[in-house]
Amino acid sequence: MESSLGFVTPVRMHFDQALALQNGQSLPAYDLMVETYGTLNRERSNAVLICHALNASHHVAGIDPDSAEVGWWDNMVGPGKPLDTNRFFVIGVNNLGSCFGSTGPMSLDPQTGRPYGARFPVITVEDWVHAQARVADAYGIARFAAVMGGSLGGMQALAWSLMYPQRVAHCMVIASTPKLSAQNIAFNEVARSAIRSDPDFHGGDYYAQGVKPRGGLRVARMIGHITYLSDDDMATKFGRALRRAEGALDAYKFSFDVEFEVESYLRYQGDKFAEYFDANTYLLITRALDYFDPAKAFDGDLTAALDATTATFFVASFTTDWRFAPARSRELVRALLKLKRDVTYAEIDAPHGHDAFLLDDARYHNLVRAQFARIAEEVNA
Amino acid sequence: MESSLGFVTPVRMHFDQALALQNGQSLPAYDLMVETYGTLNRERSNAVLICHALNASHHVAGIDPDSAEVGWWDNMVGPGKPLDTNRFFVIGVNNLGSCFGSTGPMSLDPQTGRPYGARFPVITVEDWVHAQARVADAYGIARFAAVMGGSLGGMQALAWSLMYPQRVAHCMVIASTPKLSAQNIAFNEVARSAIRSDPDFHGGDYYAQGVKPRGGLRVARMIGHITYLSDDDMATKFGRALRRAEGALDAYKFSFDVEFEVESYLRYQGDKFAEYFDANTYLLITRALDYFDPAKAFDGDLTAALDATTATFFVASFTTDWRFAPARSRELVRALLKLKRDVTYAEIDAPHGHDAFLLDDARYHNLVRAQFARIAEEVNA
Repeated sequence: MESSLGFVTPVRMHFDQALALQNGQSLPAYDLMVETYGTLNRERSNAVLICHALNASHHVAGIDPDSAEVGWWDNMVGPGKPLDTNRFFVIGVNNLGSCFGSTGPMSLDPQTGRPYGARFPVITVEDWVHAQARVADAYGIARFAAVMGGSLGGMQALAWSLMYPQRVAHCMVIASTPKLSAQNIAFNEVARSAIRSDPDFHGGDYYAQGVKPRGGLRVARMIGHITYLSDDDMATKFGRALRRAEGALDAYKFSFDVEFEVESYLRYQGDKFAEYFDANTYLLITRALDYFDPAKAFDGDLTAALDATTATFFVASFTTDWRFAPARSRELVRALLKLKRDVTYAEIDAPHGHDAFLLDDARYHNLVRAQFARIAEEVNA
Repeated sequence: MESSLGFVTPVRMHFDQALALQNGQSLPAYDLMVETYGTLNRERSNAVLICHALNASHHVAGIDPDSAEVGWWDNMVGPGKPLDTNRFFVIGVNNLGSCFGSTGPMSLDPQTGRPYGARFPVITVEDWVHAQARVADAYGIARFAAVMGGSLGGMQALAWSLMYPQRVAHCMVIASTPKLSAQNIAFNEVARSAIRSDPDFHGGDYYAQGVKPRGGLRVARMIGHITYLSDDDMATKFGRALRRAEGALDAYKFSFDVEFEVESYLRYQGDKFAEYFDANTYLLITRALDYFDPAKAFDGDLTAALDATTATFFVASFTTDWRFAPARSRELVRALLKLKRDVTYAEIDAPHGHDAFLLDDARYHNLVRAQFARIAEEVNA
């Protein structure tokens, strides 16, 4: 693995001021894992917050010295990258409830001395934003030059622009949506059902049993993967190719073992995920996705909901993304235009479905680069 | 429940001539459940075979006296219906490996005296067609006026036109495809994974344990349901509506219980299916779907594959079907046109996704009705 940022070391930030949650509960104290790249300038005007999606973390870019893994958006963030760490100070935060070091279901509940498990509160996108605001406070950042995210990360960026309008100069929402559709919720619910019905789930309290619901997690991830890729991309990558040893006959085996390449790929992805991801976190984060709907408090009127924003917007979608299709981004853009907000919208012709937001595509990256050049000028980065 | 056919009683047909299967094994003897409607004419020229999809059966129309259930295509088949049983003799056959009375994994293996379970052979669409041909033989039907099916049933109709060209006057392929895409196979594999990883599956030999992998079946069915409905249809039917008692607050509960209507619907469908369907049958039938690919033996050249056909074709697809999209039907139609076959193609603008082929849509039914009027004239029905 390689990264122009080299090794980066996350910090664990402890917060002991209670965080009031949207569900009415509160977390008395919590930790957040944070990683930063670049240097905060004297005016503290060059900070950019990167919000992560379902299975990602604070480890946005560079190489983690423990796992030796490259960050999930390393092609976007770094010296000379579209989000240039020579000019900007970039912060990645692992969200509450996630399983990469921040306080979540695997953490010990101080009240019981045992892992929270199923008793970890249901967390929302808005809760994450409040928690991230405290990270900004800790760095003395009054206003972000930009808050940016893809997919669920884009929802957080949008929520920032609504909840802390004075603290976000630019809001960058990529491959996202102002709310899940019934079909999106349906896919989430199937994934959760797979986890819940795994006997190793034990109602969410599997840590004490020394097991984890691997079968359920595997199925959840396989479903996810289908929705991240486009139909065309799957056809190009796998088609109906059979999984065969070099030189073997291209004939059916008539069995339930792996027969097609696409099966092998899905099983591999599912197995890998089941090892490193936490099932309670999967439930929590998919539920946060379901619940996000800033227009709900305005009788479904997105334009009314977005009236609170003051940021400049950059919205991007990808033509073959069927999870959060361009139409969902256009819905957001239309509402912003009605409000006469400054908004740039790009619909990028890319074959890779929802995953495109993570991939290195020159047209996409050039647009982000241009936006950050504009932002750099504005904030004197 | 109501049906203009009234009560209909299936018959169990026993075959004791071994059936050679595509996987190299053979079934020494087997039963098929068969239901018929209308009267076979003296020339035996008015017979129509209806082929069923994943979870359906021989019970195509009328009311089953035991279950009191109406057949799955009762809106299509009956006196005065698009396929008019006053003119045609219609046969429904429950496919081998299915769980509605025909020989399948739940049946006793004569060699062991125990249910076949995981030892039931992998069955293909072509195997089904051979088995159905013996039903035709039993009725003395040399040539079907038409073989018709939707979805997987459409694949069987197409296979008939290839394997027994002299025995099919008209081939009617509805909401189907000449082969599954990588995405189609991927969805099948996720469903199978859910079943396989259910501890109550016991490697397919759960009958002796007195259990069934309900959790896995439930998830499999939920995934299926998402692919049967269109995104728009789900939005119209459920949207983001909350599941609430009449007059209750339209506010989130922040819980993992059923929160949205679409979750309630999916759970209900999954639970119902898990009670009546057999898990081994689910594996077998999805595998038959995966394997179907008549062009495979012709280096993927569908036109070359279809050269064996002599039937007249009727092909229909539905605009919002994303499981087997219109493009898949067009692929078939294009190949048939290249061969200068007589083919009628209808792309029906319907909001209901893949399920549309089962629903009562006037434009769709009128086209089928017209086709059968033409067939009736040809075969003197």
